[in-house]
Amino acid sequence: MIGKNIYNFCEKIFPINRSLTGDGVRKTLEIIKDEVGELNIYEIPTKTECFDWEVPKEWNCKKAYIITPDGEKICDYSINNLYVVQHSTPINQEMSLEELEQHLHSLPNLPKAIPYITSYYSKYWGFCISENNRKKLKEGKYKVVIDATLSDGAMTYADLVIKGREDKEILFTTYVCHPSMANNETSGIALNTFLIKYIQNLKDRRYTYRFVFAPETVGAICYINKNLKNLKENMDAGFIVTCVGDDLSYSYVSSRKGDTLADKVALNILNYGVEKFEKFDFTNQGSDERQYCSPKVDLPVCSVNRTKYGEYKEYHTSLDNMDFVSPKGFGGAYNVYTKIIDVLEKNGYYELQTYCEPQLGKRGLYPNISTLETAKETNIMMNLLSYADGEHDLIDIANILNIEATLLIDITKKLYQENILKVKE
Amino acid sequence: MIGKNIYNFCEKIFPINRSLTGDGVRKTLEIIKDEVGELNIYEIPTKTECFDWEVPKEWNCKKAYIITPDGEKICDYSINNLYVVQHSTPINQEMSLEELEQHLHSLPNLPKAIPYITSYYSKYWGFCISENNRKKLKEGKYKVVIDATLSDGAMTYADLVIKGREDKEILFTTYVCHPSMANNETSGIALNTFLIKYIQNLKDRRYTYRFVFAPETVGAICYINKNLKNLKENMDAGFIVTCVGDDLSYSYVSSRKGDTLADKVALNILNYGVEKFEKFDFTNQGSDERQYCSPKVDLPVCSVNRTKYGEYKEYHTSLDNMDFVSPKGFGGAYNVYTKIIDVLEKNGYYELQTYCEPQLGKRGLYPNISTLETAKETNIMMNLLSYADGEHDLIDIANILNIEATLLIDITKKLYQENILKVKE
Amino acid sequence: MIGKNIYNFCEKIFPINRSLTGDGVRKTLEIIKDEVGELNIYEIPTKTECFDWEVPKEWNCKKAYIITPDGEKICDYSINNLYVVQHSTPINQEMSLEELEQHLHSLPNLPKAIPYITSYYSKYWGFCISENNRKKLKEGKYKVVIDATLSDGAMTYADLVIKGREDKEILFTTYVCHPSMANNETSGIALNTFLIKYIQNLKDRRYTYRFVFAPETVGAICYINKNLKNLKENMDAGFIVTCVGDDLSYSYVSSRKGDTLADKVALNILNYGVEKFEKFDFTNQGSDERQYCSPKVDLPVCSVNRTKYGEYKEYHTSLDNMDFVSPKGFGGAYNVYTKIIDVLEKNGYYELQTYCEPQLGKRGLYPNISTLETAKETNIMMNLLSYADGEHDLIDIANILNIEATLLIDITKKLYQENILKVKE
Repeated sequence: MIGKNIYNFCEKIFPINRSLTGDGVRKTLEIIKDEVGELNIYEIPTKTECFDWEVPKEWNCKKAYIITPDGEKICDYSINNLYVVQHSTPINQEMSLEELEQHLHSLPNLPKAIPYITSYYSKYWGFCISENNRKKLKEGKYKVVIDATLSDGAMTYADLVIKGREDKEILFTTYVCHPSMANNETSGIALNTFLIKYIQNLKDRRYTYRFVFAPETVGAICYINKNLKNLKENMDAGFIVTCVGDDLSYSYVSSRKGDTLADKVALNILNYGVEKFEKFDFTNQGSDERQYCSPKVDLPVCSVNRTKYGEYKEYHTSLDNMDFVSPKGFGGAYNVYTKIIDVLEKNGYYELQTYCEPQLGKRGLYPNISTLETAKETNIMMNLLSYADGEHDLIDIANILNIEATLLIDITKKLYQENILKVKE
Repeated sequence: MIGKNIYNFCEKIFPINRSLTGDGVRKTLEIIKDEVGELNIYEIPTKTECFDWEVPKEWNCKKAYIITPDGEKICDYSINNLYVVQHSTPINQEMSLEELEQHLHSLPNLPKAIPYITSYYSKYWGFCISENNRKKLKEGKYKVVIDATLSDGAMTYADLVIKGREDKEILFTTYVCHPSMANNETSGIALNTFLIKYIQNLKDRRYTYRFVFAPETVGAICYINKNLKNLKENMDAGFIVTCVGDDLSYSYVSSRKGDTLADKVALNILNYGVEKFEKFDFTNQGSDERQYCSPKVDLPVCSVNRTKYGEYKEYHTSLDNMDFVSPKGFGGAYNVYTKIIDVLEKNGYYELQTYCEPQLGKRGLYPNISTLETAKETNIMMNLLSYADGEHDLIDIANILNIEATLLIDITKKLYQENILKVKE
Repeated sequence: MIGKNIYNFCEKIFPINRSLTGDGVRKTLEIIKDEVGELNIYEIPTKTECFDWEVPKEWNCKKAYIITPDGEKICDYSINNLYVVQHSTPINQEMSLEELEQHLHSLPNLPKAIPYITSYYSKYWGFCISENNRKKLKEGKYKVVIDATLSDGAMTYADLVIKGREDKEILFTTYVCHPSMANNETSGIALNTFLIKYIQNLKDRRYTYRFVFAPETVGAICYINKNLKNLKENMDAGFIVTCVGDDLSYSYVSSRKGDTLADKVALNILNYGVEKFEKFDFTNQGSDERQYCSPKVDLPVCSVNRTKYGEYKEYHTSLDNMDFVSPKGFGGAYNVYTKIIDVLEKNGYYELQTYCEPQLGKRGLYPNISTLETAKETNIMMNLLSYADGEHDLIDIANILNIEATLLIDITKKLYQENILKVKE
């Protein structure tokens, strides 16, 4: 149900011509704002310096295509925005096939796929084409048109901070710079949007939640540049929301340190909440964890995915389309992420208030008749009390008990209400 | 030999009607006192508050039985004290089989066994019966008699502190609240008694030894309540002595922290001193380690058993009788526990007094002729010297060498006498 | 090529009659001095106290042999210096076979080998003989001659310190007390000599290198005694160079602590630089690591070998000859040790100077066209930047990336020159 809703939203933004900069990003962010009711959209001018980088020129592509010697229009950007190398310089020119071939990109091993190619930082123009169609091209004069502007403008990104009782923050960030590919990366935008709605509906929130939608790498670098102080002071855990729509597997990319709160909660939910998942250490990083975990930035950020970027053959091609993702895929990712939120909301270093075990019977917390079911619950409760020593948080205790930490939430609440457990100051 | 002596003592106290409170406990403690010559017996009045608990009423059962419609006396407490639910309220009444059935307990899966049932904290009466005999009961009027008192009195427990050169203490504690079951728990009482005798005969004791005999849970809680300051200040290691009479296996239940001195010495002896053993982490706790290891109490207490409570089918039934335990079973447990004591007595963080290796030859500690046997001894000695850095105790060094720590005792003594090794201040 | 040179040098010093003390050691050290151009040779008088030891008497053997009843000269020291028990007292006497047998040593399990036997610290004379030849001895009068002096003199050792930019030192030490055996121990002398030449040719050295040639055990103890303060203050890593000439395997004996810089660099090179190797923990110690790692000395010294002492059947016999070692064997050891040096020279705790990743493209460090080869290099570079947090040195980072640390040297140099990386102060 929720998976279907996310899928539908993904489908809606899928066709938009997003790139590192430009109007496609703006249009996407406006649709998100409509969906959730609130969103801060920022424009950061070309050439603005952000740490070691500067914001590149803005690229907008009106149309792009090739006319074959037979007069056929191919590689039409209005049909599929992957046909054009991102940030191509404008061109309008006739040329031989030989000359054109220098600017064509295809994948011999995936002959039906249009590849996704970018050239953000070197001047270049090019087209992407399936290997099958490339082979059909004959000798002759080709007309090549890219009607695009690459000029001073801005890079666009957005965030939304939803306040909780505490200033401490949880971050969910995704990237908005990819054109029409579904899993990487329209899925992250869609899921992040629905996580906003989940938080908006969460009563009596403990944490403050920060949602970010920015271009990958340079967008994340600019975002960190603008928000470093606050992020360093307040972030308890953060997640790169990417590749969350397919149903092939679950994956996890660790933070650089590997043992942050973000890693801990993600691993508990993945270890006990899904049938299996692939575990990638940080040396496999390839997205914005690289910025958030950079030594001087050093934030507790990991990534939870369905099938990780680079681990499926359709990755970075036109085959990563709406057929590759599914309501079931989105539903699974949403389930994992909302469990992560639920656990973080209640997590803490609890301390047992009594010497020795409390007399649970007199408080109605100990079963009169013992069954296998109550025995399991009692064992969980007794161990929760035993490890409530101010040195193990709920996730640690769940890990010791080999259970999903969500299973401790209700018991903890009862024991807290009875003043048996308190949170360590 | 020693195993047979312990078995015989176990047999002597086996028939006594022990419960959480009452005269059976008193009688048991008097027999122990007779055996070892000294024991402090305490009475703690009903309703005394101990941390979150209060001492329950005292229960004494004079007689209890059922008269069947045929006039047969069954479930006779004087024949087997398991027939009555512990702490049953008095009753003397006729009733139908249907009514009686509400108060009968049996085990369909173990049809010959009388189960062991307690009702310490809710008012109730009941009888335990084998499933086979229960099936034979016919319709008709049953006369049900429980001639018991449940009234203000006291809970009884005992301890014995045997002084050594140092104030630091080793604790051995067992529980005295179980009626006639052999492994759990008459065996612990018997073994603890013979460990007292071992310590009484140990010349030039280093440690002070504390032996405790108390009811499980509330007894342990009261004991900790009365002795907390001393236990916290002085206890170096403690052991729950329970289920130590059978010969099926060895087991170990870790302390909450898992790496205390108690765990370290127990694991070394079990790893290298017995053929195999079952290792249970603290989440499998179920006895008084729960109190001693409770967060605010936090003492270094683990448990070494033959077959652990709950891990044998006869557990908590009439089948846990004197046939289930054996002299060989007791002998094995005694051997492990006395090795633990021997190692603790000599354990320490030794420091090599020379720079580089000492010249052992001139002290007659290096073999003139090297054989395989002396080579092994020499290797042990050279490694003992190498790791005598004040950061590894004897148990650590034994673990590094993959040997039982008892094997280092004699060599250490020699090197100590030669002033080559000293104990770190 | 280099392997052949080391082999040839080994062959040159192989026949010399080395022992714990005496002229053979002096002659060997002079040959080393000739080879490398500089060497400090020291004489330390008999009876000098060094920690718990004293320097033994000097032993020089002019000739030694046995004349059989048939007039045949056997066990002739001038043919093989293993025939005589090292430090044998002089003798010139006729005796029966029965009497002689008390002083003969052979190896029934290795019937062609002459064993290597010493008697440094107890007065004794003896001959070593192959089991096959021993069996041929007939009844009759034997003339036994050992023309040797065992008298006050000196123990001889040498060192060479080659200064670098820093005072911090790397130690390479080997022992010079073994007579004609090739792998243990002429090979270490030969390799250590060629490591001196490698360092002499290393431009702009960072580390100061200390090379030691001393008798085993008492020689090492005396060396440490004389140099303790400097060694403690300056040694960053040290290596016992022994058994480095055969081609059967590679081996590693850990330092006592097991995690020193010496261990770290050795393990990285062995894990990723050779096909396989045997890993021995410190409990297998048997050479001078025992002294250097002794608790109060406590230096970061491990050992990298081809086949470790005691792990080949020819060990400590006449079969450990020039056929047992090979140019290939020496070449492999030289390769490992020089890689260790190369990594140590460039190792350090580097710190990334930018927030977030640096823009490598504008510095020409990011490939324009990505191939499998550049992708691997880029991944290594990105991870190097990610882990350059001042808490991981280059070896740690190489271990995280599962690569030989030598692979990081060039990239690190480039990034250092671009001021992207600096060494942590």
